[in-house]
Amino acid sequence: MKKSFIDVKTDSHFPIQNLPYGVFSTKGNPTPRIGVAIGEYVLDLSVLEKEGFFQQIIGEHGPVFNRTSLNDFMGLGKDIWSAVRKQVQLLLSADEPTLRDHTALRHESLVLQNEVELHLPMKIGDYTDFYASKEHATNVGVMFRGKENALMPNWTHLPVGYHGRSSSVVVSGTNVRRPVGQTKPANADVPMFGPSKQLDFELEMGVVIGTGNKLGEPISIEQAEEAIFGLVLVNDWSARDIQAWEYQPLGPFLAKNFATSISPWVVPLEALEPFRVTGPVQDPQPLAYLRQPEANTFNIHLEAYLKGEKQHTPTRISSTNYRSLYWSAAQMVAHHTIGGCDLNPGDLLGTGTISGQEKEERGSLLEITWRGTEPVQLGKDEQREWIEDGDELTITGWCQGDGYRVGFGEVTGTIEPAHDVKQLLSEQKLVHK
Amino acid sequence: MKKSFIDVKTDSHFPIQNLPYGVFSTKGNPTPRIGVAIGEYVLDLSVLEKEGFFQQIIGEHGPVFNRTSLNDFMGLGKDIWSAVRKQVQLLLSADEPTLRDHTALRHESLVLQNEVELHLPMKIGDYTDFYASKEHATNVGVMFRGKENALMPNWTHLPVGYHGRSSSVVVSGTNVRRPVGQTKPANADVPMFGPSKQLDFELEMGVVIGTGNKLGEPISIEQAEEAIFGLVLVNDWSARDIQAWEYQPLGPFLAKNFATSISPWVVPLEALEPFRVTGPVQDPQPLAYLRQPEANTFNIHLEAYLKGEKQHTPTRISSTNYRSLYWSAAQMVAHHTIGGCDLNPGDLLGTGTISGQEKEERGSLLEITWRGTEPVQLGKDEQREWIEDGDELTITGWCQGDGYRVGFGEVTGTIEPAHDVKQLLSEQKLVHK
Repeated sequence: MKKSFIDVKTDSHFPIQNLPYGVFSTKGNPTPRIGVAIGEYVLDLSVLEKEGFFQQIIGEHGPVFNRTSLNDFMGLGKDIWSAVRKQVQLLLSADEPTLRDHTALRHESLVLQNEVELHLPMKIGDYTDFYASKEHATNVGVMFRGKENALMPNWTHLPVGYHGRSSSVVVSGTNVRRPVGQTKPANADVPMFGPSKQLDFELEMGVVIGTGNKLGEPISIEQAEEAIFGLVLVNDWSARDIQAWEYQPLGPFLAKNFATSISPWVVPLEALEPFRVTGPVQDPQPLAYLRQPEANTFNIHLEAYLKGEKQHTPTRISSTNYRSLYWSAAQMVAHHTIGGCDLNPGDLLGTGTISGQEKEERGSLLEITWRGTEPVQLGKDEQREWIEDGDELTITGWCQGDGYRVGFGEVTGTIEPAHDVKQLLSEQKLVHK
Repeated sequence: MKKSFIDVKTDSHFPIQNLPYGVFSTKGNPTPRIGVAIGEYVLDLSVLEKEGFFQQIIGEHGPVFNRTSLNDFMGLGKDIWSAVRKQVQLLLSADEPTLRDHTALRHESLVLQNEVELHLPMKIGDYTDFYASKEHATNVGVMFRGKENALMPNWTHLPVGYHGRSSSVVVSGTNVRRPVGQTKPANADVPMFGPSKQLDFELEMGVVIGTGNKLGEPISIEQAEEAIFGLVLVNDWSARDIQAWEYQPLGPFLAKNFATSISPWVVPLEALEPFRVTGPVQDPQPLAYLRQPEANTFNIHLEAYLKGEKQHTPTRISSTNYRSLYWSAAQMVAHHTIGGCDLNPGDLLGTGTISGQEKEERGSLLEITWRGTEPVQLGKDEQREWIEDGDELTITGWCQGDGYRVGFGEVTGTIEPAHDVKQLLSEQKLVHK
């Protein structure tokens, strides 16, 4: 098994088999730049690039690692991603002396993760959210339309998706303010205005596009995985009461666009290869442009934790798996572009909430508490129907190898109280950007 | 009445009262830069800025006009937009000699519009589309859900909107390829795959955001117009057969994201002031965060023309007005941000199809032909239920002043035939961007 000269614990998310990319800065150098996570360290790729270690791979396309986002690097395509990954893996290997025995370079290029600030890893041009879990779509359908009409007729024929808001995608650790808005309780005649009372999370993963297509030129299902740079964890915060009132007929809008949190490390698709598995049987067989051979997905264990403000330990409230998704990432890419829509480096495709068949595999409070009717226990003393102010929601996930983990770190966020509604609209809020 | 030393015809869209901003390039200088339209000319603001004419206004924030998009200029805020507009108006005035009598500077800064290429005027971070015309929403509702349930219960309480796709917004003149995709005719058991057979346009206007807000900090209804830089014409191309099959429950996706065309000139809100009028009475009165005094909209006459490939003259198929929209641009901004969603310079808010009460005021073929059942006559020999290959669709619009027009130019696009479905998926389509 590959080993690094850097000590990596067996339950670390970031062994030499992973090497996810992120954007970081330090107190000493506040300019964001690109690094990879290794054990408890970040390897600063901008330093290695400056020293010429990627010259033969990237050549005139560089420099790409002294940038504030991964977009330029991602735009270079799969062959270059792969060659860079090989080179970083070599430089970090236990038996490769170049970096291992070069004290000055090691000091300059390796920074402890707890001493860095992590930023949004890519500039997201467009964010799309799918609805790819059959169990999630069924649960929601049963709650809102009853058992008979739970799944819409189109659901098994295409990966249902919609456009999300890219400007409000934030990196893990960013506090999220409880949104205010219009809601209309079932027994009310007119809508009300105030803070959302049904704040929820959605456990998702995000597909990060690396190589795009020209407008009008679809990406085939065979090429689709080549367009994908890697995956991140996503928490698609949702205000269920706002959603219920606003979403017909054009879909969710303010219920979703106040914030979407993602994990800071993008795990390259190549690192997931050892964990390739076959997804659920698709019946009916999809149309040709969506048809895929087996082994079209990955075995990624996923968990969500909730912690009240006064609590010391978070409670695990969900335990599910990426492999249970009915529609694969490649199918999302092929469907998204079939009509000609162009994808670009840095675009984010959310999978939608990932729920499994078991109760503990549900990926949102909407499902876990069955729309607030079955509160979930937090520790000994507290219960939750929905997320409360001060609550911290964390999603984590990893692929379990033999003696190592290829992990995604975590995406976490804490809820701040809503604005005081009276004060809310009296202040000047325009800012020059 | 203000006059320019440049000759401007009375039916020109671009008198000194307008001065819309755009991004252009020339054969001699292919680098895109910012100009304003005046009569048949473009005034190159990057030349004037280099010569110091905006030094006292923009100062250290500049240069902003030698850019490939308006975003940096728009981010400077309303006071600077206004001062720049005054300065340009002064320089173009008939009785101001600075530019008028400076032959070399005039030659360097004034270019004929028919000698320039126009580009997308702004970099669009996010595109949102509203559904703000009551007549349009009612027409669509009657067709799809019947008269009794035409308007959803939320419609009169909030401006219904959804997120669109920003990457596929293209500038007027860009050809649009007919999309292929899944459709399911009412009498079919399973969906089919092929070119859309119900290709449509939507006559809309677009609100271009100039000054944004911080995530979590809403823009009040009182401030909302200050956030708006100006307006453009929008054609939100739509594939109705794809839409009908895919849109439940999360809204339109591939039916809309293959292309949205906008006009190249952004008319500043200030140029529309003389045409301010009061919109439709809102009953029920909206919640406080959406409540506005009178004179919250503008009198903008709008027309759509369709021309078959073999035809010489386009046929006017719609004649409507921006003022008929139920929800105002300011209400869209206030609603969009009330939950905390951030807007940024360059964001585009489409109004949704603008239909009026009369039959000739319908802004889409869906409504004009009543879902294909009442074909529209084109010239003497042709009819249309939907848009055919080779058809050219043009939207234009203007405010009629006393002896002058403040116009939007036009947004036009021609439909290219769909890809051959068999060949479609066999070619390598990934591109490095």
